[in-house]
Order: sequence, then structure tokens, then C-alpha cells
Amino acid sequence: MTHFDIPPLTLNESLIWQKIDNLNKPKGSLGMLETLAFRICRIQNTLSPTLSHPCHLLLAADHGIEREGVSVSPRAVTWQQMINFTNGGGGVNLFCKQHGFELTLVDMGVDHDLSSHPSILNRKIDNGTRNFLYEPAMTKQQMHQALQTGFSLAETCHTKGCNVLCLGEMGIANTSPSSIWMSIWGKLPLKSCVGSGSGLNTAGEKHKLTILEQAVNNFERQPLPHNDPSTIIQYFGGFEMVAAIGAMLRAAQLRMLVLVDGFIMSACMLAASRLQPAVLDYAIFGHCGDELGHRKLLELMQGQPILHLGMRLGEGTGALCAYPIIESAVRMINEMNNFKDANIDKYF
Amino acid sequence: MTHFDIPPLTLNESLIWQKIDNLNKPKGSLGMLETLAFRICRIQNTLSPTLSHPCHLLLAADHGIEREGVSVSPRAVTWQQMINFTNGGGGVNLFCKQHGFELTLVDMGVDHDLSSHPSILNRKIDNGTRNFLYEPAMTKQQMHQALQTGFSLAETCHTKGCNVLCLGEMGIANTSPSSIWMSIWGKLPLKSCVGSGSGLNTAGEKHKLTILEQAVNNFERQPLPHNDPSTIIQYFGGFEMVAAIGAMLRAAQLRMLVLVDGFIMSACMLAASRLQPAVLDYAIFGHCGDELGHRKLLELMQGQPILHLGMRLGEGTGALCAYPIIESAVRMINEMNNFKDANIDKYF
Repeated sequence: MTHFDIPPLTLNESLIWQKIDNLNKPKGSLGMLETLAFRICRIQNTLSPTLSHPCHLLLAADHGIEREGVSVSPRAVTWQQMINFTNGGGGVNLFCKQHGFELTLVDMGVDHDLSSHPSILNRKIDNGTRNFLYEPAMTKQQMHQALQTGFSLAETCHTKGCNVLCLGEMGIANTSPSSIWMSIWGKLPLKSCVGSGSGLNTAGEKHKLTILEQAVNNFERQPLPHNDPSTIIQYFGGFEMVAAIGAMLRAAQLRMLVLVDGFIMSACMLAASRLQPAVLDYAIFGHCGDELGHRKLLELMQGQPILHLGMRLGEGTGALCAYPIIESAVRMINEMNNFKDANIDKYF
Repeated sequence: MTHFDIPPLTLNESLIWQKIDNLNKPKGSLGMLETLAFRICRIQNTLSPTLSHPCHLLLAADHGIEREGVSVSPRAVTWQQMINFTNGGGGVNLFCKQHGFELTLVDMGVDHDLSSHPSILNRKIDNGTRNFLYEPAMTKQQMHQALQTGFSLAETCHTKGCNVLCLGEMGIANTSPSSIWMSIWGKLPLKSCVGSGSGLNTAGEKHKLTILEQAVNNFERQPLPHNDPSTIIQYFGGFEMVAAIGAMLRAAQLRMLVLVDGFIMSACMLAASRLQPAVLDYAIFGHCGDELGHRKLLELMQGQPILHLGMRLGEGTGALCAYPIIESAVRMINEMNNFKDANIDKYF
């Protein structure tokens, strides 16, 4: 595993709070806008942060575990949605357009030939992962390739002047590896980490849980370093998820804001933080979704999600919808008068 | 009291859900965006709603009860902030600018001569209300004048093509009448309706509670129809609050979305609903603030706030910050593909 140096946050905390507390409003009265502004100042190492050229990476891949019937949606939905995204009609398209995000669609390992769609970046590692009920989802080499792809994708965005990287995914069955990662790293029973995905009923959820428990049991019986983060990532991960981890790490290295979407991207951030804890300093959690366990997953990272709208679509939609709040926070610290300029008796 | 006819919502509910459920996403997976889209369709009586020329009314006035030391901020902050708003440096300015709201600053009764500021609309009824610890805050005639002003303001917006009216306030001490209205109409002890306002300490909150309890006791000893909504409005209301009530009622009458800010504007919506319950059909609550009791206040109206960001600045800032979510909901129902157009196997 490559070593990921992430710059520590060094900007003096009191300096930032001094600026925020002197804006013409009762102290603390803009709530999370203030804590967001504080964090963005630290991330960008400035008292006058900016948001520039926001980019959204939509990473897609299929999962071997889908063969076990752990998802209500068929595998084909992954490629069908990717093509739909090229036509602009998906949730992710709308919200990218609304908030001025450059959208990049990336085939990390979709089980379908998408080469006739030039607007989908071809980074296919394989036609989906292997089935981790029986074997590791990917080889070590594939994992490195996926991480490296994520690195490059984040770098490309950065080169364009982007300092806000949003990550979303499309990959039928990818709540399954997410639940397993959460269970292993959070030391939580799988039962409390497994939800309905895109809409399983009770019997479906029970089946999913059984399959995932078997998969973890099989994993634990393998002669592997079970506590090694990269082993766990390789064994259960999807190509789109590992690419997301790589992108998160590289984005943090480049001092970009990393805007994290729902359950799956939060699980990827958890994985990234097991490789390099400092990545969390750069993470902004867009929303707390409806998937069972998302709240607990965020708690594992002390994440304070911006929105609570009961969304669970993925694609990055929840994080994208949170973006204007981040913009509001930046406007606040840059454009709001302070008490002196405003000629106002200071509130207490 | 004038009679306020508000058009009932008649658009077939199943028709709307049919459209929403057929968008290419797992059913319900866009959470509150879906329920918002549903409500906006009903309000506008169409399956293809639009948002046009959003307007924000910032209504300001002073309160006689401020003389009793119920607020940590001095009365002068009301006029100082109004002047600051004319210079663009207030919270309300930033977020109006961010989201394309036309901002109208209205002096409904600020205790200061603001006539040298032409960008402040002069609708002054008096230099603040009287002190409701001892007497009604305003006369019946003043109340009608304030209501009528609110009516006209909403109408003017509507004439410009506006169909989203956002309401905010500036008025030191106006959490006090808000708490009383909540207590009376919610049949709740005042204690659970009184908070720190712009930042009272524990002793300050206790004093505020004592004063407000005395005021309500005095009110109850007067030979007045204590259950009559307009009597309660007249006795405790601020001019900016009564104007907001008028604007809410007229906006609903004109089928506009009424975007409600924090504790004070929510209390005004509660008051408006006591005059005409149907106004609630048109209310969209932007956020649940940090002021003690705001959550309970929203519950009284079955209000589902969009944001939970711990904000308590007022001015309309919380509601304005919620606006992009409303835009997202409208984009979703208008621009997202359905399963058929997208050639996607329907999710369950």
C-alpha cells in the first residue's frame, strides 16, 4: 500500500472563531454554517476560503455478490443507469446542473460494454468484481489499479482548478460491502449494519444478512491478516468503491474539500480513514440517508451530516443537494459584515 | 376581521404520486424532495410546477415589551440592522443574493426615523408597539392596518410574477410575543415555549419567563374575548408579525408558496392558521431552529422543516438557506427521466 501523506490542519482555531464571532449576529446563531465555515478555513488554511470549479465523480461498477440476490434491483440497472446519466435524465445530472458541478461518469468495472458511450470514461478493471461469498472480490493488483485510478481522477479535477470534490456511485449491490466494512471496522454486529438497499422487503433483508454473515465467516476462515485495512478493502470492495477511496485520499492530500454522499460513500470514507485517519479532516458529510445504519456509520467518524432528508438514492445526490449550504457558509465568512463595519451594538 | 378565503387543494393525490413514483429511482428514495414536490404540485395545481421570481419580505418593528429587559440585545439593534441591511452586509442579504430572492426591507414600526433610507419601505405604524405587560400592544385599527399592509406587500410580489414568498423579521424582543402565542394556542405552559432569544443566560431566561407570565395573567384579567384569535394577535403582536400574518394569508389566497423561517415566523404562521386553517396547506417550513420550543411549535402545525442546522438568527436566513432544496424538488419532478424514457428495468 502506498503511503498517503495528508497535510495536518494548522490554522489557528481561535483566529477563525474570532472572525466568525465578530460577524454581526448573535454568537453561534448561524449554527452549522459557522462550524462548516470553521472547517473550510482549516482545510484551505485561510480566513477567506473560496469554492472553485466543483467536480462530481460518479463511479460505477458491478459486484459479484449481486449473484446471491442481495439486492432488489437487477445488475443490469448499473449499466442502464450509466447510459441514462449520459442523457442527462438521472438524479445526479439534475443536481450537478443545479449547483454547477462538472460531472464525470467513470466506468470502473460495469458488467457491460459501455465503449460506445464516449462521455463515460473507460477505466474498467473487470466486468464486475468476483463474488466475495466465496473468494476475494478483487486481486491485490486490481485494488492498486482502482486506488491509482481514484488518485488520478482527483488529480485531474485539481488540475482544472477544483477544490471541492464530490463523490457518488452507481453499483447494484454495493450496500453489501459497505455494511460489511462498517461491521468490521465499527466492531458492530452485521445485523445493525444491514438495511434494505434500494428497497428489499423483510424477507429480502433477512436473506441479505444471512449471505453477508456467511461471507464474513468465510473471510475469517481464510489465512489472511484479518485486521489489515487493505486486506479488508480488497476482499469485499467494489472497483467503484476502491476508486472512491483513492480519490478521497488524493483529494485530502491536495487540500480539497471531500464531499461525501450516502451510506456507500460514507463506508468508503471509513475505509479511507483506516488507511489514513487524517482524511477525515477533509470530509464533509452531505447528508444522513435513510439506509439503516447510516447514522451509526457517521457516528463512527464523528461526522456531522448537513442534511437529513431521508434520501437513499446514491449517485451523490444527497451530497450535491447539501452543496448550497456549504456555499452559504463560505459567503457568511467572506461577505457578512462584522459589528464594527455594520455600526451595530454588539449582541452578546 | 376580514374573511380570508384560501383555495382548497384539489389536485388528485394519486396522479402526483404516480408521476413521482415513476421517476427512475427506487420508490421514495429521494425522501423529502418527493414530499416537497408533491406539496408544490398541490399548491400550484399542476404536475409541472415552477418557481418564479422568489421574493423575501424582511419586516421590522420594535416591541414595547423590550422595555422589560426580556432580550439580551438592545432595542437600537433593530434600526441599526435595518440600515446595515441597506448596505448588503447582513445575513439576509447574503442568502437573498445567493438564491436570487428580491429583498424588500419594510419598516413596519421601528423605533427610529429611517426616512433617509429610501431602500427601506416606510410602512411605519408607530415607533414600536406598546408594552403588553400593561396594555394591548396595539389598537384594533393598528392591527388591521398591519394586516392590510401585509396583504398589499404579498400582492405586490405576486404582481411581479412571484410565486414563492419568503418571510423574515427583525425586531428585538419578538421571541416574547411568539412564545406567548405558542403557549396560548398550543395550550402549553409558557415555560416550555420560552428560550434564550438572541442569547440570554439562565437568569435572563428566568426573568423573561416571569415577565411573560405576568403579561399573560394581566391579559386574562382583562374583560376581553380571550379565545378570539384576533384579540390575542392584537394584544401581544408586533407590527412586523401582524404584517407577516397578513402576507401569509394573502400569499396563500394567491396560491403562492409561503416559505416560513424560524421561531417567530412559525409563530406568525400559527397565528395565521388560527384565522384561517387552510393557510397551512401553503406553508413550507424552511428549518427547525435552535430556539427552545421551535420543534414543538412546528409540531403544533404538523410542520416538516427542511433544514436542521441549529440556526437562530432570524431575518429569514434559515428559510432562505432551504430554498435550493425546494428547487431540487421542482427539478426532480420536472427534469428527471421516468423508467420508460430512461430504458431502465423498474426498481421495486
